[in-house]
Amino acid sequence: MAHVNEHYLKLQAGYLFPEIGRRVSAFADANSAAKIIRMGIGDVVKGIPRPIVDAMKSAAEELAHDESFRGYPSEQGLDFLREAIAKNEYQDAGVDVGADEIFVSDGSKCDSGNIQEIFAADSTIALTDPVYPVYCDSNVMAGRTGACRDGRYDGLVYLPCTEDNNFVPALPEQDVDLIYLCSPNNPTGAVMSRDALAEWVEYARAGNAIILFDAAYEGYITDDGLPHSIYEIDGAREVAIEFRSYSKSAGFTGTRCAFTVVPRELTGHTASGEPVALHGLWNRRQSTKFNGVSYPVQRAAEASYTPEGTAAVRGLIAFYLENAAVMRERLAACGYTIFGGVNAPYLWLRTPAGFDSWGFFDHLLQNAHVVGTPGSGFGAAGEGFFRLSAFNQRDAVEEAMDRISGLK
Amino acid sequence: MAHVNEHYLKLQAGYLFPEIGRRVSAFADANSAAKIIRMGIGDVVKGIPRPIVDAMKSAAEELAHDESFRGYPSEQGLDFLREAIAKNEYQDAGVDVGADEIFVSDGSKCDSGNIQEIFAADSTIALTDPVYPVYCDSNVMAGRTGACRDGRYDGLVYLPCTEDNNFVPALPEQDVDLIYLCSPNNPTGAVMSRDALAEWVEYARAGNAIILFDAAYEGYITDDGLPHSIYEIDGAREVAIEFRSYSKSAGFTGTRCAFTVVPRELTGHTASGEPVALHGLWNRRQSTKFNGVSYPVQRAAEASYTPEGTAAVRGLIAFYLENAAVMRERLAACGYTIFGGVNAPYLWLRTPAGFDSWGFFDHLLQNAHVVGTPGSGFGAAGEGFFRLSAFNQRDAVEEAMDRISGLK
Repeated sequence: MAHVNEHYLKLQAGYLFPEIGRRVSAFADANSAAKIIRMGIGDVVKGIPRPIVDAMKSAAEELAHDESFRGYPSEQGLDFLREAIAKNEYQDAGVDVGADEIFVSDGSKCDSGNIQEIFAADSTIALTDPVYPVYCDSNVMAGRTGACRDGRYDGLVYLPCTEDNNFVPALPEQDVDLIYLCSPNNPTGAVMSRDALAEWVEYARAGNAIILFDAAYEGYITDDGLPHSIYEIDGAREVAIEFRSYSKSAGFTGTRCAFTVVPRELTGHTASGEPVALHGLWNRRQSTKFNGVSYPVQRAAEASYTPEGTAAVRGLIAFYLENAAVMRERLAACGYTIFGGVNAPYLWLRTPAGFDSWGFFDHLLQNAHVVGTPGSGFGAAGEGFFRLSAFNQRDAVEEAMDRISGLK
Repeated sequence: MAHVNEHYLKLQAGYLFPEIGRRVSAFADANSAAKIIRMGIGDVVKGIPRPIVDAMKSAAEELAHDESFRGYPSEQGLDFLREAIAKNEYQDAGVDVGADEIFVSDGSKCDSGNIQEIFAADSTIALTDPVYPVYCDSNVMAGRTGACRDGRYDGLVYLPCTEDNNFVPALPEQDVDLIYLCSPNNPTGAVMSRDALAEWVEYARAGNAIILFDAAYEGYITDDGLPHSIYEIDGAREVAIEFRSYSKSAGFTGTRCAFTVVPRELTGHTASGEPVALHGLWNRRQSTKFNGVSYPVQRAAEASYTPEGTAAVRGLIAFYLENAAVMRERLAACGYTIFGGVNAPYLWLRTPAGFDSWGFFDHLLQNAHVVGTPGSGFGAAGEGFFRLSAFNQRDAVEEAMDRISGLK
């Protein structure tokens, strides 16, 4: 008799965004005249820059001809893209990452969800609260937790990110094996300073822990003093895996491309204490359960590094950051307490008195026809907060702010 | 201290195809004048049909404009493609599969590698020998086996496919929970008859087992009497998941698109015997660790169902089947004993006297500069056999056959 993976049954009802989708659909069905403005899921809205789309089309055309046809892409990513990433994302900024340490994928969600597979089933996992749900749920599904009680799973080490610590997690009091960090942060918009990150690297080095560093939003960092990569910190190559994505920079949410860096010298250990290179384990995982990214998509990602592509991507990011600035100003004028939205595309606001997170979600949806994301969907410490995404057209942002300003 | 998933360390050196790649590279480096003909990995070589490429380019162009931009594709696949699949692959052939039972993905390798996640860690797994390595390796990595001894992992139930049973597996003698079947088969090219498949469905129904049915090569079936889908068998909806792919039909090995069917009524059970719908579990897996297939790729897949697309795909398949027929005839004339290559793109030949599988691999590479796949790479029962793929240009097929004919 086939038995199911019962760890799945511990998961709380619905992944956050599908649940939002269901509530929005129900509202839209019942209120067909309402013009809903979506600031929830954090999906970009601007067209992909011309040089990038042209590269995708040109690569698609190559596939039409026997002479230029391309079959299986390598599971690690094609050399032209791995080399462009190493140079443009790292080496030109003086950061030591080689092309062969880069694994191209179809999304940071996939990578950050799959990475736990290469670690032991009894690993102790630390993650921030609030947190991007994938880090948590993928470990629940793998059996690294007990049941969920009051929004927290037994066995996980939660690192609260609150106003008190400026939404930057403190080091845990107990030993942990794997630590998920995300900076610029989803959902809070907080960005870790070089010093804060250095403290974590030191902690990981001291205890042979591994940091899983999600830098999917690094393109939004404009302050020179803030680190874009964990590998800017001395010693991080021996303790950190980094995830990056084209979704929020080049507008690839619907195109799908991302990458993961696994340095050559990074090791985990066997139970008996032998070091094992994580590069080889991740390579084996990808070689066995993944077949590479679509060729036209890899050419499109490559084109984001041409001078025209780079300039256009910077323009997209600047546009969304301007949205964030508008939102910060307008919401502050209404009396909201706001965090994030600087060096990050997400605003994290305190819900007004009398509303919990889902209550404020329903309130905004019903009365302003604006969709945000309830903070409690990201963890217990997110209760009383609400995420708004700056990924929208300017007129929609202005309209949403007008509506929110007009709420009783 | 971060500990690794030590189950990975049980895996035998290198996934098969990377190992072949290494040997071929080494040979090519040492013999730069040799014109190597690749009949190993089974990668297609013909350009993707015009209507399909045009759909991909047109969808890419949509992404360039704010008005037509598309963000996150749904994790299950976009409705237009799920509906086209349900109609064209199933309903038009009288097979009962609904659009909402289809999960679009970036490859059957991913799907057949990931599917085991939704089942219990102590599941008993049956797979054929020889077998597509992903079914085996993904279960090794998940800890469902013991060590590997003489090419077989402790704890797996191997179903030998030999000349004696015409390479169609017999039912196991013990109870098993999950059964991987692949028809048309990779690597043997054998195709299961309706009666053989019905026997398996009956076995699974009797024991509440689940069949994981890989139909990635179903497009190659030309005999009217052979089943294309396991759902042509009565009762299969309650015991089977089916995988299909565009890789070998529309030429999508480098484009990446596939799908998995999980019928609504299909259930696994908890340890205490409660039924759990597998549709919901797979949906949760995909929603958490996958973010959908690139929009232009989904439009390309959809275009394979237009009248022009369908005709062109049929033409591609017919071309490769003609290759297979040429290979069968030429190799038989040289005295080789050949299986497969009819209703399937793979030929499975007995290695000549004096050669084991890897020995014949090296022999062909060194002396004919032809790359095939050693049968033993697919399992212990594949020893003494060799896979040749029909995915090549006709002149390369002829040239390879000339060279093999000329071998001493």
